[in-house]
Amino acid sequence: MATKFVSERNIKFLLYEVFDVESLTKYEYYAEHNRKMFDMVLKAAIKLAKDLLFPLFEEMDRNPPELVNGEVRVHPAVRTIMKEFGEGGWISSRVPFDQDGEQLPALVADICEFIFAAANYSANAYPGLTFGASHLIESFGSKELYDCYVPKMRSGQWQGTMALTEPEAGSSLADITTMAEPTADGYYRIKGQKIFISAGDHDGVDNVVHLMLAKIEGAPAGVKGISIFVVPKKRIDNTGDLVSNDVVASGVYHKLGYRGCPIAQLSMGDKNDCRGWLVGEPHSGLKYMFQMMNEARIGVGMGAAAMATAAYYASLEYSKTRRQGRKVSRKDPNLPPVAIIEHADVKRMLLFQRAVIEGAQGLLMQCSKLVDFQKVLDGEDRETYRLLLEILTPVAKSYPSEMGIQAISQGLQCLGGSGYCEDYPLEQYYRDCRIHPIHEGTTGIQAMDLLGRKVIMQNGRAFLLYINELQDTITAAGKYKALEEFAEKLNQALTKLQDVTAHLISIARQEDPEAFLADATLYLEFFGHVTIAWQWLLQGIAVQKALNNGAAKKDFNFYHGKMFTLRYFFAYELPKTLGLAECLMDDDRLTLEIQTDYFND
Amino acid sequence: MATKFVSERNIKFLLYEVFDVESLTKYEYYAEHNRKMFDMVLKAAIKLAKDLLFPLFEEMDRNPPELVNGEVRVHPAVRTIMKEFGEGGWISSRVPFDQDGEQLPALVADICEFIFAAANYSANAYPGLTFGASHLIESFGSKELYDCYVPKMRSGQWQGTMALTEPEAGSSLADITTMAEPTADGYYRIKGQKIFISAGDHDGVDNVVHLMLAKIEGAPAGVKGISIFVVPKKRIDNTGDLVSNDVVASGVYHKLGYRGCPIAQLSMGDKNDCRGWLVGEPHSGLKYMFQMMNEARIGVGMGAAAMATAAYYASLEYSKTRRQGRKVSRKDPNLPPVAIIEHADVKRMLLFQRAVIEGAQGLLMQCSKLVDFQKVLDGEDRETYRLLLEILTPVAKSYPSEMGIQAISQGLQCLGGSGYCEDYPLEQYYRDCRIHPIHEGTTGIQAMDLLGRKVIMQNGRAFLLYINELQDTITAAGKYKALEEFAEKLNQALTKLQDVTAHLISIARQEDPEAFLADATLYLEFFGHVTIAWQWLLQGIAVQKALNNGAAKKDFNFYHGKMFTLRYFFAYELPKTLGLAECLMDDDRLTLEIQTDYFND
Repeated sequence: MATKFVSERNIKFLLYEVFDVESLTKYEYYAEHNRKMFDMVLKAAIKLAKDLLFPLFEEMDRNPPELVNGEVRVHPAVRTIMKEFGEGGWISSRVPFDQDGEQLPALVADICEFIFAAANYSANAYPGLTFGASHLIESFGSKELYDCYVPKMRSGQWQGTMALTEPEAGSSLADITTMAEPTADGYYRIKGQKIFISAGDHDGVDNVVHLMLAKIEGAPAGVKGISIFVVPKKRIDNTGDLVSNDVVASGVYHKLGYRGCPIAQLSMGDKNDCRGWLVGEPHSGLKYMFQMMNEARIGVGMGAAAMATAAYYASLEYSKTRRQGRKVSRKDPNLPPVAIIEHADVKRMLLFQRAVIEGAQGLLMQCSKLVDFQKVLDGEDRETYRLLLEILTPVAKSYPSEMGIQAISQGLQCLGGSGYCEDYPLEQYYRDCRIHPIHEGTTGIQAMDLLGRKVIMQNGRAFLLYINELQDTITAAGKYKALEEFAEKLNQALTKLQDVTAHLISIARQEDPEAFLADATLYLEFFGHVTIAWQWLLQGIAVQKALNNGAAKKDFNFYHGKMFTLRYFFAYELPKTLGLAECLMDDDRLTLEIQTDYFND
Repeated sequence: MATKFVSERNIKFLLYEVFDVESLTKYEYYAEHNRKMFDMVLKAAIKLAKDLLFPLFEEMDRNPPELVNGEVRVHPAVRTIMKEFGEGGWISSRVPFDQDGEQLPALVADICEFIFAAANYSANAYPGLTFGASHLIESFGSKELYDCYVPKMRSGQWQGTMALTEPEAGSSLADITTMAEPTADGYYRIKGQKIFISAGDHDGVDNVVHLMLAKIEGAPAGVKGISIFVVPKKRIDNTGDLVSNDVVASGVYHKLGYRGCPIAQLSMGDKNDCRGWLVGEPHSGLKYMFQMMNEARIGVGMGAAAMATAAYYASLEYSKTRRQGRKVSRKDPNLPPVAIIEHADVKRMLLFQRAVIEGAQGLLMQCSKLVDFQKVLDGEDRETYRLLLEILTPVAKSYPSEMGIQAISQGLQCLGGSGYCEDYPLEQYYRDCRIHPIHEGTTGIQAMDLLGRKVIMQNGRAFLLYINELQDTITAAGKYKALEEFAEKLNQALTKLQDVTAHLISIARQEDPEAFLADATLYLEFFGHVTIAWQWLLQGIAVQKALNNGAAKKDFNFYHGKMFTLRYFFAYELPKTLGLAECLMDDDRLTLEIQTDYFND
């Protein structure tokens, strides 16, 4: 088992040197915090991750959830995890003081989640989903719903879920058929099936609270008719006892990875006694859900980057200790073999991983900072940061998911045959990470969201704000001799991105939306690479500042490593945009023109 | 379970229309064959694959090998498989008539192996490895060794293996420490450890015959001191009985995939009674091994392409039947959902898979044809085809391996959440395929072989022959209006490949070999894309010929599908060379310059 799963030095670099979390404490909302406290929180998060979560990483995989007598049985440690996360305040780290939360900046709370996910992604899913569901009730639910459910969820006694997907409604939520029939008693009678529900049922908590999409009888067709309900596994009866609410776990999936967390099938109302309570207004469920969904999408990106980070450190550790072969310039077999990290190709594989994970982590913390800015600012500024977060969300979800798979695969490759075996953790990371481009909206869905909604919304306002952000960074970086070359490269890539975007929008004007969106996935990939180059430039600025201010000697390796990784990204990763641009500017509509029959034979 | 794992139509297209296997029958060596016979062989191979191998695909994965009382226990069907492959003549399909073989052209024999590997890669490994080992004995061993081992191997009674890797000698065979001490009785006393030996021990055969690398006492250091031995699990004693040869299976790996075939650890000579018989001359083992290794490398490429082919048909089947969402131009939720293959993004994912697998299959059959040409031609021609095969081998191994992973991952993505679950075969393909960039020489090793040996050998003669081949194809394709554009694109990419190669060779002249080879893996990727573009152009020519000659109406979908896939490759895949070229022409030596310490923190 590897021993390191995150870099504390890198976390502090991003938190304090790049994103300057301390600057938030000048605003009233975060005024009670200071760096010393943030450091303590980080320390506590790392300790919890190291002592509780990381040692369970393999064990929870090897002992996956099972359906026993209609209930999902999970590893006994899940109860401890939920208890620790509840009592330790981790589920309510983002919650305001007046609701007994820690009111931490998103930057700090999210990096703690990153640490937990790096240690054990499956384990972190339980409290993570619970926070998301409780936040939805807090934001849009009545006081009664809040009082009944939220405290129990935040204390880790009750699990929260997102119950959206159905057998015939995965990517297309318009087609959900779960029905809600109003009753005179204020609740709705729920009937339907849900599939692929993460933590949808388990015995590590006393109750499971589903935030469930359903349609009220007579609702409009499609997404406009979706409402959202609180549907608990057990409801509280008149005497205050928990009784069955006719929600049955009808199955648990056997899956490639992410095995520490159950994904369940649910059946509601088999006995016609499943009750749900409407959240907010009828037929407004999709809007409410998107708050939770957007948080979940960034959470997936965070988890993907975190997992790839842990995989990187495992492959780095192996590469430093495994001795094999000799340098190509000194092949004498009488010389002792060198550590494989001495081989240029292994360094390249490690740099690739590092360029992906530290770039992705930067983007995710950028998103956290945008959340924080929305908390402390208002008016025009707040809207600016909201729009930036909107346009970055599909990228923050999919770049780490897609590139995390490639990074982990390269990590596995560093180990050769050992990477393929269960004796080392790489094979598990390789299995676990494949969920990320799928759950909470596939990469294809993210791509449609980016190009089909975010780039064009408000006449391209979010896109323009994005361009401005990048241009500001390019200008700032251009002032450092060591960054000039990279600032110029990003500038060129950004110009190309604008050209490509303009070209696609002209297609939207001239042809039907099919043509506009046919290559949205490639556009997302292009956008992602440019965005990560921006993040690397931001990190480069922080490095140059530190070096100019006389960095401590003990930090030299770290800063030089950063600069090499930045160089790697610009030399090896950013050029991938060349091929993507050529592709996107090509007007061959072959994916639209090919007939289904041509796939026969 | 999916129902289709290969396309018979595509196999026949490649065999008869692109590579014209019938033309081989004009040479004496293959004169007894004809198309009718080839068709019968194909039919029999498909039947065997469908009836025996494919139904075991999941079952063998779910019941992996176990070490029980010092012996590896495999699925009972393995015995049936070896028997069928032995008795059916499949192990000796390439073997000359005078050795009781079928003397089939490599084109036909290899495509049968492709069919078997598509149905069940693990199952095919047993007879595949056995043929390779028997071929080595046939080529370099004495008559006594041949008589003792080869017939039993070809009849499927005895397993053959390649026993190369050791705990401290994986990629670097120079460091093997297994020792062979000569005795007066003609055999050698073997002592050592081997790891990662595919089919290294199992109870589906009566004996296991290892082709084992070892060093004779006093041998030169490094690879020049390697000899190769036949080391059976059981040897024949004076009375003709099989007795233990002191080869013990000390472990079996638990691995990510490829679980139908055991990978074993072996310990030889624990009781000082392990006997080995030298093959050929002492200290010449590496040269002999490379015959088997080169066959195995092409076999890996074949297996990777085959597995990705099966995954493609599974994802295609799902995409045709799964209904979800509506076309972006017709989003009315009152309309019924469409099959997901109607979505442009899904078509793109399917075309990507098809572009990879059918391109890769073309390259592999190209290699088969080069083997056949070496059988039937001599002198200068034979040397030409030998050199072409040499330069194509690392590409034929690594393109299908690396791109096969990406293809299968896209196949899994087509299924969404179902792709992540064990109810569908995609998750198994995703696990199984990850072995390919590792075994029989990692991608990094292939890259060093291509750039560091093959491209520069004989003053670049093989490279020049390769260029000539591609230019001939470009010229031929240029004569068809429908292919002009693609011929020109390949021409440009080929020119770029020559520029990049010249640039790298100039580095080799001016700097040390580290700088020359630092980005060999990227060069291999570049070379691979150009090579597959060539293969697509060859297939395009065959399509145009067929269409010009008045193809049958039932073939229209197939030919049009081919042309769309060709267009896809040139529009979406070949542009990836732009970024690679930029990278390779960049003289930043960052992977050499970065110090190991910079990876700290």
